[in-house]
Amino acid sequence: MTYCVGLCLDRGIVFMSDTRTNAGLDNISTFRKLHSWQIPEERALVLLTAGNLATTQAVISLLEERTKAHEERDPTILSVPSMFQAARLVAGTLRNVIDTHATTGQRADSSFNATMILGGQIKGGPPRLFLIYPEGNFIEASDETPFFQIGETKYGRPILVRAYERGMSFADAMKLLLVSFDSTIKANLSVGLPIDVCLYETDSLTLPGIRRIETDDPYFRRISDGWGDALKQAFESLPNPEI
Amino acid sequence: MTYCVGLCLDRGIVFMSDTRTNAGLDNISTFRKLHSWQIPEERALVLLTAGNLATTQAVISLLEERTKAHEERDPTILSVPSMFQAARLVAGTLRNVIDTHATTGQRADSSFNATMILGGQIKGGPPRLFLIYPEGNFIEASDETPFFQIGETKYGRPILVRAYERGMSFADAMKLLLVSFDSTIKANLSVGLPIDVCLYETDSLTLPGIRRIETDDPYFRRISDGWGDALKQAFESLPNPEI
Repeated sequence: MTYCVGLCLDRGIVFMSDTRTNAGLDNISTFRKLHSWQIPEERALVLLTAGNLATTQAVISLLEERTKAHEERDPTILSVPSMFQAARLVAGTLRNVIDTHATTGQRADSSFNATMILGGQIKGGPPRLFLIYPEGNFIEASDETPFFQIGETKYGRPILVRAYERGMSFADAMKLLLVSFDSTIKANLSVGLPIDVCLYETDSLTLPGIRRIETDDPYFRRISDGWGDALKQAFESLPNPEI
Repeated sequence: MTYCVGLCLDRGIVFMSDTRTNAGLDNISTFRKLHSWQIPEERALVLLTAGNLATTQAVISLLEERTKAHEERDPTILSVPSMFQAARLVAGTLRNVIDTHATTGQRADSSFNATMILGGQIKGGPPRLFLIYPEGNFIEASDETPFFQIGETKYGRPILVRAYERGMSFADAMKLLLVSFDSTIKANLSVGLPIDVCLYETDSLTLPGIRRIETDDPYFRRISDGWGDALKQAFESLPNPEI
């Protein structure tokens, strides 16, 4: 499993992903699931991936290779004119990779499926966030549904639903996502540290770099320990029922 | 789906279940999933059910019928000598019902599976809590794992993990479970009010009756509304990260 979130704010988009992959309980590795492309001051895109690792790595490699062979007739993620076209490109690549493996060769025990979150901004358009399905279609975040989760989404959802506000600061949004990730990591062995974070600021058209939060990160430890106490206090502040 | 929890405390066992059943999104009904048997001052048992409704109703009906035909050679839930034997009886009945439907007749789209939580006390033994699987085997709650959830368990789990304490009062335990249920109900359409609650007090060997919390219950409304605010305050009490 995996846990990734893309969250729209007034001031930009926050991306967060864990890095644990597993094929069975005894085959655990750390892989990056947050990938980015940019032409500074022209476009900035971030892709979060969940699902079959061979599929997601093939999609990333195909997208990467195309950006380096400019002569090919295909549009590349560094040349498409809009975020919508970028989502179509990623979605089409994903569907092709899955089709290739699902219809030929040996049958695998696990499925080749993968789900992705693509967000960012291309000059001339607004920041946009998409959820891309393994079938190659996708949906876009809106005011009513301003964030997408992929992977192990349930444990971390209640706090997102309750505490998210579109106008919140990057610091608050990062804190919110760390609480959501901490709840998930505590409940599911297949989601684990380190965590990758990327904060995209609207109209900057430039990515500030990916921050990695390691297991011994002192701020994450403070959030993880403090949230238990804060939750208990919140719980105690509620009135008791009559028995 | 369904959401049911059985929670061991020092002073007894708390049982809570929702009442929504659905076969598709457009076929929603309300059914009791919390069932009880007792011989006052001799035994008190509560059974929570999740899964295929035809299966769980058949199990309940078979257990009920046996208690009324005392002449039959089978042991009944009102005559077994221990909670362990009660769990064996329920588990065996469940497995037989599933086997009957799974191996004969038409194939159904959905599976016949069901999972159950059985708890209570029989004179001469301590209170015990069991999680019964559709295969007919079961596990028992312990000091390390003092509660069981069945059905849609993930949304409501983080608060249980963080705020549960074995020494808590019945009022606190009921509040905790209502917060856990509220988080689940907010996230999943297949879990819904009303909620049934039963509080079994250790060594009372008598059930106090089942309390039903309806949609317009004023205390549940206060918890549901208040929890959002309390969570936000808890969230704000945590330190902000450096960006």
